[in-house]
Amino acid sequence: MKILTVIGARPQFVKSAVFSKCCFDTGRDEVVVHTGQHYDADMSLKIFEDLGCPPPKYIFDGLSRSPQLMIGEIMRDLEEVVNSEKPDFINIFGDTTSTLAAALYANKSGISLLHIEAGLRSRNWDMPEEYNRLCTDILSDYLFCPTESAFKNIQSENLKGDAFNVGDVMLDAIRVFDSSFRYDGPYSDSDPIVLTLHRSETLKRRERLAELLDYVFEEAKGRQILFPIHPNTKKHCVKYEIDLSRFEVIDPLSYIKMQGLLKLCHSVYTDSGGMQKEAFFHRKPCITLRNETEWGELIDLGWNRLWKEKYLTKVDDNPYGDGFACNKILDILD
Amino acid sequence: MKILTVIGARPQFVKSAVFSKCCFDTGRDEVVVHTGQHYDADMSLKIFEDLGCPPPKYIFDGLSRSPQLMIGEIMRDLEEVVNSEKPDFINIFGDTTSTLAAALYANKSGISLLHIEAGLRSRNWDMPEEYNRLCTDILSDYLFCPTESAFKNIQSENLKGDAFNVGDVMLDAIRVFDSSFRYDGPYSDSDPIVLTLHRSETLKRRERLAELLDYVFEEAKGRQILFPIHPNTKKHCVKYEIDLSRFEVIDPLSYIKMQGLLKLCHSVYTDSGGMQKEAFFHRKPCITLRNETEWGELIDLGWNRLWKEKYLTKVDDNPYGDGFACNKILDILD
Repeated sequence: MKILTVIGARPQFVKSAVFSKCCFDTGRDEVVVHTGQHYDADMSLKIFEDLGCPPPKYIFDGLSRSPQLMIGEIMRDLEEVVNSEKPDFINIFGDTTSTLAAALYANKSGISLLHIEAGLRSRNWDMPEEYNRLCTDILSDYLFCPTESAFKNIQSENLKGDAFNVGDVMLDAIRVFDSSFRYDGPYSDSDPIVLTLHRSETLKRRERLAELLDYVFEEAKGRQILFPIHPNTKKHCVKYEIDLSRFEVIDPLSYIKMQGLLKLCHSVYTDSGGMQKEAFFHRKPCITLRNETEWGELIDLGWNRLWKEKYLTKVDDNPYGDGFACNKILDILD
Repeated sequence: MKILTVIGARPQFVKSAVFSKCCFDTGRDEVVVHTGQHYDADMSLKIFEDLGCPPPKYIFDGLSRSPQLMIGEIMRDLEEVVNSEKPDFINIFGDTTSTLAAALYANKSGISLLHIEAGLRSRNWDMPEEYNRLCTDILSDYLFCPTESAFKNIQSENLKGDAFNVGDVMLDAIRVFDSSFRYDGPYSDSDPIVLTLHRSETLKRRERLAELLDYVFEEAKGRQILFPIHPNTKKHCVKYEIDLSRFEVIDPLSYIKMQGLLKLCHSVYTDSGGMQKEAFFHRKPCITLRNETEWGELIDLGWNRLWKEKYLTKVDDNPYGDGFACNKILDILD
């Protein structure tokens, strides 16, 4: 059994690292391809080093920046890798352009497709990710869902693939890499608020971005706000002439440092999907700066709320499994 | 309002021709792109000439034969056309690789997407078309369904696009082009049986293909069987060493000639989707050489049955509209 894992965007790297570690530890043959979708070496490859994992065997370069061209380029470049590696499975995570491109490639070339993080739905049609995940789930042979609600979504859609609720591989990562998490500044407060914003629907209108920033500042009630800023968000703030002096703006953090910061922070304000869960894994309150979330369980548990909605009430439960999702996935494939 | 119509496979050409005629007759601006997916000039462009329509403005060449490469190439080539034509809408038909490629392009580049023949479902996961149509419907802004059942499928799926049951554009083609339909041989019987086979799931195993051919021969009970043979079907018959001497094998027919033949034939045996409906439009009994069909209405009406199933009972009704689907589509866009 040989698995070809295709990743491309930053949030996929840690998932891939913990999946690869599980493959290695349990004697499975896996090869990783990095499509180059997120191409900043500082923001992408360092994580493998930080986590003590080898970097991807293949890294594509020269990818177009527009998704309508990127999809075809990734499929073209995958052809060569597949011809040489001859995998039994293609494995993908989440809902990025790279995810969809690899899914289309697998389906059209008849290679069995594993989708990890299957079944998430927002029904927000302004998010490119929503189309990616719906199409990817249609094309998948194995749908590995992180939660019961994702599993139920798949069951209601009458798709080809077999669905399994294996738990969330991001929880695997927290379990496996916990001892290496460390934040070493800069900050002054002992328990700051953490703010992250990066989604296209957050950034595409000045009013929306400015309203969210004002909201977070008011909610913080004087507490320090640490704002590791995504390059694209920074670019938009400059373009919109938005003053960020109320925030402690810092460079983007590595996964290791961000997890360290989440461990010591007071609470989290974010439009990220993954960070909502990471806040929960560290049992920190999270306020989601979007109008809906794929992670409804966290709302139900009271650890997360949508901005401007009611206050948090925290329940002690974990819908994301036991941190052994990768092992379950590999056992199912045997 | 400018519409860019993207076609690529033979069954799409007549739909495109009748849609273009309606755009022209009603003063709408439409440009047609032919992706070159079906690249045999005899089998593709002649239809426009036969129907008195101009050929596509753009024809891509040099496309790969494998769908996993073709998708990206079509998207790449579309970029140039879109940059020069600047359409408000991209319009696609059916469920081919070209359909999906154009749908992905429109979605990723933010151009409003019209899908004509939306909502068809077979849930046969061996058909590449099933994945194409499901993904395409997810990506569409306007879902123009040919029947009420297709419309109900879309309604049950909670998709982004607005769905409309406008009737079937293939019926428009029958209405608009009827006077030019003519079959001029070769045949001897006055009302022969017509046989067509071309689908990959029909051809991929020798046993399946041979079983279907034996079945049709027995059912014909001595009646002449006219078999316009698809090049790929011919290739497979040679490879499998299947004897076709029991059939009157002829070259593929143009649309005009095929419609003429359907008008005068006794009945139709086919694995084609479109021909099931065309047989009905000419009120000829059809036996579908597959294990399921997207056109369940024809089964319900008794004009069509799946091979080896019960006999036909014909009801006088028409679920495909009134032959003015194109006009309804354009009125909705206004």
